[in-house]
Amino acid sequence: MRIGVLTAGGDCPGLNAVIRSVVHRAVAGHGDEVIGFEDGFKGLLEARYRKLDLDAVSGILARGGTILGSSRLERARLRQACEETEDLSRELGLDALIPIGGEGTLTASSMLAAAGLPVVGVPKTIDNDISATDRTFGFDTAVGVATEAIDRLKTTAESHQRVMVVEVMGRHAGWIALESGMAGGAHGICLPERPFSVDALCAMVEERFARGKKFAVVCVAEGAHPAEGQMDYRKGEIDQFGHERFQGIGNRLAAELEDRLGKEAKPVILGHVQRGGTPTAYDRVLATRFGWHAVEAVHRGDFGMMTALRGTDIVMAPLADAVTELKTVPASRMDEAESVF
Amino acid sequence: MRIGVLTAGGDCPGLNAVIRSVVHRAVAGHGDEVIGFEDGFKGLLEARYRKLDLDAVSGILARGGTILGSSRLERARLRQACEETEDLSRELGLDALIPIGGEGTLTASSMLAAAGLPVVGVPKTIDNDISATDRTFGFDTAVGVATEAIDRLKTTAESHQRVMVVEVMGRHAGWIALESGMAGGAHGICLPERPFSVDALCAMVEERFARGKKFAVVCVAEGAHPAEGQMDYRKGEIDQFGHERFQGIGNRLAAELEDRLGKEAKPVILGHVQRGGTPTAYDRVLATRFGWHAVEAVHRGDFGMMTALRGTDIVMAPLADAVTELKTVPASRMDEAESVF
Amino acid sequence: MRIGVLTAGGDCPGLNAVIRSVVHRAVAGHGDEVIGFEDGFKGLLEARYRKLDLDAVSGILARGGTILGSSRLERARLRQACEETEDLSRELGLDALIPIGGEGTLTASSMLAAAGLPVVGVPKTIDNDISATDRTFGFDTAVGVATEAIDRLKTTAESHQRVMVVEVMGRHAGWIALESGMAGGAHGICLPERPFSVDALCAMVEERFARGKKFAVVCVAEGAHPAEGQMDYRKGEIDQFGHERFQGIGNRLAAELEDRLGKEAKPVILGHVQRGGTPTAYDRVLATRFGWHAVEAVHRGDFGMMTALRGTDIVMAPLADAVTELKTVPASRMDEAESVF
Amino acid sequence: MRIGVLTAGGDCPGLNAVIRSVVHRAVAGHGDEVIGFEDGFKGLLEARYRKLDLDAVSGILARGGTILGSSRLERARLRQACEETEDLSRELGLDALIPIGGEGTLTASSMLAAAGLPVVGVPKTIDNDISATDRTFGFDTAVGVATEAIDRLKTTAESHQRVMVVEVMGRHAGWIALESGMAGGAHGICLPERPFSVDALCAMVEERFARGKKFAVVCVAEGAHPAEGQMDYRKGEIDQFGHERFQGIGNRLAAELEDRLGKEAKPVILGHVQRGGTPTAYDRVLATRFGWHAVEAVHRGDFGMMTALRGTDIVMAPLADAVTELKTVPASRMDEAESVF
Repeated sequence: MRIGVLTAGGDCPGLNAVIRSVVHRAVAGHGDEVIGFEDGFKGLLEARYRKLDLDAVSGILARGGTILGSSRLERARLRQACEETEDLSRELGLDALIPIGGEGTLTASSMLAAAGLPVVGVPKTIDNDISATDRTFGFDTAVGVATEAIDRLKTTAESHQRVMVVEVMGRHAGWIALESGMAGGAHGICLPERPFSVDALCAMVEERFARGKKFAVVCVAEGAHPAEGQMDYRKGEIDQFGHERFQGIGNRLAAELEDRLGKEAKPVILGHVQRGGTPTAYDRVLATRFGWHAVEAVHRGDFGMMTALRGTDIVMAPLADAVTELKTVPASRMDEAESVF
Repeated sequence: MRIGVLTAGGDCPGLNAVIRSVVHRAVAGHGDEVIGFEDGFKGLLEARYRKLDLDAVSGILARGGTILGSSRLERARLRQACEETEDLSRELGLDALIPIGGEGTLTASSMLAAAGLPVVGVPKTIDNDISATDRTFGFDTAVGVATEAIDRLKTTAESHQRVMVVEVMGRHAGWIALESGMAGGAHGICLPERPFSVDALCAMVEERFARGKKFAVVCVAEGAHPAEGQMDYRKGEIDQFGHERFQGIGNRLAAELEDRLGKEAKPVILGHVQRGGTPTAYDRVLATRFGWHAVEAVHRGDFGMMTALRGTDIVMAPLADAVTELKTVPASRMDEAESVF
Repeated sequence: MRIGVLTAGGDCPGLNAVIRSVVHRAVAGHGDEVIGFEDGFKGLLEARYRKLDLDAVSGILARGGTILGSSRLERARLRQACEETEDLSRELGLDALIPIGGEGTLTASSMLAAAGLPVVGVPKTIDNDISATDRTFGFDTAVGVATEAIDRLKTTAESHQRVMVVEVMGRHAGWIALESGMAGGAHGICLPERPFSVDALCAMVEERFARGKKFAVVCVAEGAHPAEGQMDYRKGEIDQFGHERFQGIGNRLAAELEDRLGKEAKPVILGHVQRGGTPTAYDRVLATRFGWHAVEAVHRGDFGMMTALRGTDIVMAPLADAVTELKTVPASRMDEAESVF
Repeated sequence: MRIGVLTAGGDCPGLNAVIRSVVHRAVAGHGDEVIGFEDGFKGLLEARYRKLDLDAVSGILARGGTILGSSRLERARLRQACEETEDLSRELGLDALIPIGGEGTLTASSMLAAAGLPVVGVPKTIDNDISATDRTFGFDTAVGVATEAIDRLKTTAESHQRVMVVEVMGRHAGWIALESGMAGGAHGICLPERPFSVDALCAMVEERFARGKKFAVVCVAEGAHPAEGQMDYRKGEIDQFGHERFQGIGNRLAAELEDRLGKEAKPVILGHVQRGGTPTAYDRVLATRFGWHAVEAVHRGDFGMMTALRGTDIVMAPLADAVTELKTVPASRMDEAESVF
């Protein structure tokens, strides 16, 4: 068989591990040929690809990023692609396509599958918000990076009797904030799923100082927002240079806490360090398993599906289901963390 | 309520996180009193304990080891304890006991529960071999340590055209070897579950050298053993000083490969570094959730049970079931790793 | 002898290692008594202290922060303290004082020494900008944290064909930016010591993209500033909430590069993660040696001096000399890094 | 100019950073041509080499191992090479050779230089035992790996009231044992430089247990040996399979301590994990500086010399001097560690 593989969307530790696993299983296990499209769907549409043999994926298991490059999806071109799908397939002699990507990529994959392309998807997001799978690779690495940062910030906060506000990734789902907050022992956790109360955060800090614990750490997802009437906050303010990105919730919340509490409150915005670099062992194993099962699905003709973790098993889930609903943090998970939410 | 907690068996990253979570939930959440017994069941039998309040567990979340100390179980004394259980409970005014431990501890807990003590267990093993739960805390940390070692060894192996044999923990179940082998990209993985073929390992090395990949890494569980007729190996040989421990499978296999292949083969025995030190974020979260749910089970009167991970949920499983069967690596999981087994 | 020890100024990995070493050497080595003042000079002036024996410093070697707490120096109160110094010494029965701190602390120590207090200083700064010593502890840890961040950012930058701008600490001296930039392989490094050219940075990025290396990383010290006429940048702009801190050089430079290059440029502000958490082995060794030699200096009556690293030796340098001149990055060190400055 | 570069001897983190720096400085800085010989001096003698341009060294800064491969030196062939040196040089059109290696390599380089080859050496050893330079790259990484292992072992030792014996590298010089022992807070450190007393180690352990500190960690260099009459120990015992390597000092000492103390004592042999993998930031900076200065020395015609760190400067030292004497740990450095030696 001739199998195409591509990576699309944001960087995510484990992408190379999937590519390597696909190549190992397909080439060494089944005698297939694998080609890798460059820069995501763009490379597919422009027929920019290279052959991937065992040598091509040697040494990439532990490496962050993607050797294939990536790009964000342009929906218009994809629709066009769907129309030309049969030609594309025939021209390239593709027996199957394995796109590795997040919600946008899986939606696109679902469209391609509907248009008749033999597609098996592999889900990817550091945000862990795809509902069809228990976990996605990249998430564990992001949580690990954020947790190490919180560990470091705690000693500084304690030495200086400060409040530290750590902003982590998570625009629509707060999984990274929840788990790194729990793992780092943050005293407050703010998630997109539940508008937070500045009053409650202040009360928590005051109570800690009263108990002699003269510091506090608040872990806030970039997509978190205050409850009605709690704090003046509008995302997307424009700064004096015409850029809107600088005033995130972390900076804003630290300023507010400092004003209200009369104590030093310092923001730390972790940003892109969470999505780069070598994946954790957990993510490498999950990514490798996803790659292996994607190839097996191809050989079974299990198209229109994507790999998913359920308990300890890798199963196949319909691509269409995968993208219907965002997996957000349920209240029961917040209860388990001894933090203010 | 008055809740006792103890840690028993081998060291395991995440023990302190469970203790902290039990105290946070019980004391801050329910207004309970928590006492911690020292050195496992020994402390229980000798009524050596201390009160655990919020201050007592401050700063321990990320710390390896156990602030309560641990000890291996002496079965005779435990049987005796079971007989005296009602007295013990009454004397100490215990409403519930939360033992955190491995197979031995859970068996003991099951006996104590059968004898009428209100027990809720928390499973603990870096080996991940308890069948009632998808994963146990400590395992992810052990795999992480072993994977980092394999990452390091690969560059050395490659620079010197060597075979490296890494021995990791796992006497009866090969989970650490499987997952660190996969995450580190080991070319051979030897597990207790499947007697390995030295012939196959040699063929793999020869094939790699023939392809120009002039090194190989073999990851071997301490409990792995060669298939019939493959290699002269008897565990527990006595050395010239009367100690039996030095001749493990890692050393033995490296010597055999060197002899057969005529290439340098170096053993590395990771040993106890796998079970100490700060837990990964994954293990801290799992341990915290286990602690929280153990306290909730106590308050529901859900005795004779232990916490367990199923998919993304924490559920309660009967203690009796937990210890009936060891969870070993199934053949399907070996298939997913592109290694020689 | 009765020796006082205190930590002052910003958090710095290795403070606890110095405290531990002072106590070990003084108590176990010389039979001295050691007392630790709380919250820096404040604790000295308010006679808030506790006895430090071997138990008190058990387990702190690898821990970030300072078990004694710290505070910034208020110069007015210190001047007053200098006047009362003899009373202070007599009252507390102090035979020597070992203050551990940065430039401000060493200046204060120098004043106290001039006023007659038997002082031996230990220099501390993550910025590595004290001229009397080859290196200071804390610096290696800060460089390590920043380097790991750059490592991670590179894979993300590469996958997305982006410019990443990493802002690291260093208000007046660019050592952290220089060494983490070299260690991480940054393509541009901006230091306080040399106004940078945005033109040169843009040319470097364009040249890289032209060569097919479709990403770049710029490492910028927080105190770096553009050369005349290169970029509109005034530190300390006030945002709409009345806070001035958000618009640092990292954010500003990323915006400028994005505008000029027409390519995505993302800022990452590392902030306080650089100064917290467990120290590297290098910093633990240096801190331990400093502590040991400080006690020896006390016993030799070598007052008014501070510990310093020269080559591989620890020597004593006059406190007065230590603070006359900031150690900045010389041009020769910039030459060694194959980066744009 | 046409410059050759090669790496010889054992693996050492930072080798790739030197190669990269040489290429960057020579090619981008001076417009030179650089060729890399494969597998050390072997590749030189067999004229196996490849051109190294900027692309060839892209992405290797943080990678362990050496992209050029390495091999141990065969002295006979080298002598022969020295005789043929003029032919070699002429044939390959070499204007200079930069060998990167340890004592053996530098000795060989010195011979080649004496025979008229234009050689500039770069010292390399994780053991830090070359006297002409304050430190060598690779050492900091090795100490970091060993320290992290000791950190992890301490929690396990403490939870189980055990003695842990950690064997680290260092056949003739004990720098790794000294610095990782200090950084990890080992209670006993055994070095090749000073025969150790088992009596003293036992007394230290007993004293600790008597004080309620119920564990101890001993860090022992592989080349350490007991003082006369202290312990039956002969290196190089042959095991029942005819291999001599298994009975190292770590295993032997743990057995002895267990026998004498009647307490559990566990050996951990770190082995090759200390010399592989990504270098620390410190080692990357030092390696990069060495590479840069080696090229500058070539252009100055400063042959027969090697790069060396003196304080904060890189200087050139005569190759002949470099190898006359091993730099061992002086007694003064042992004094600074609060450990039993």
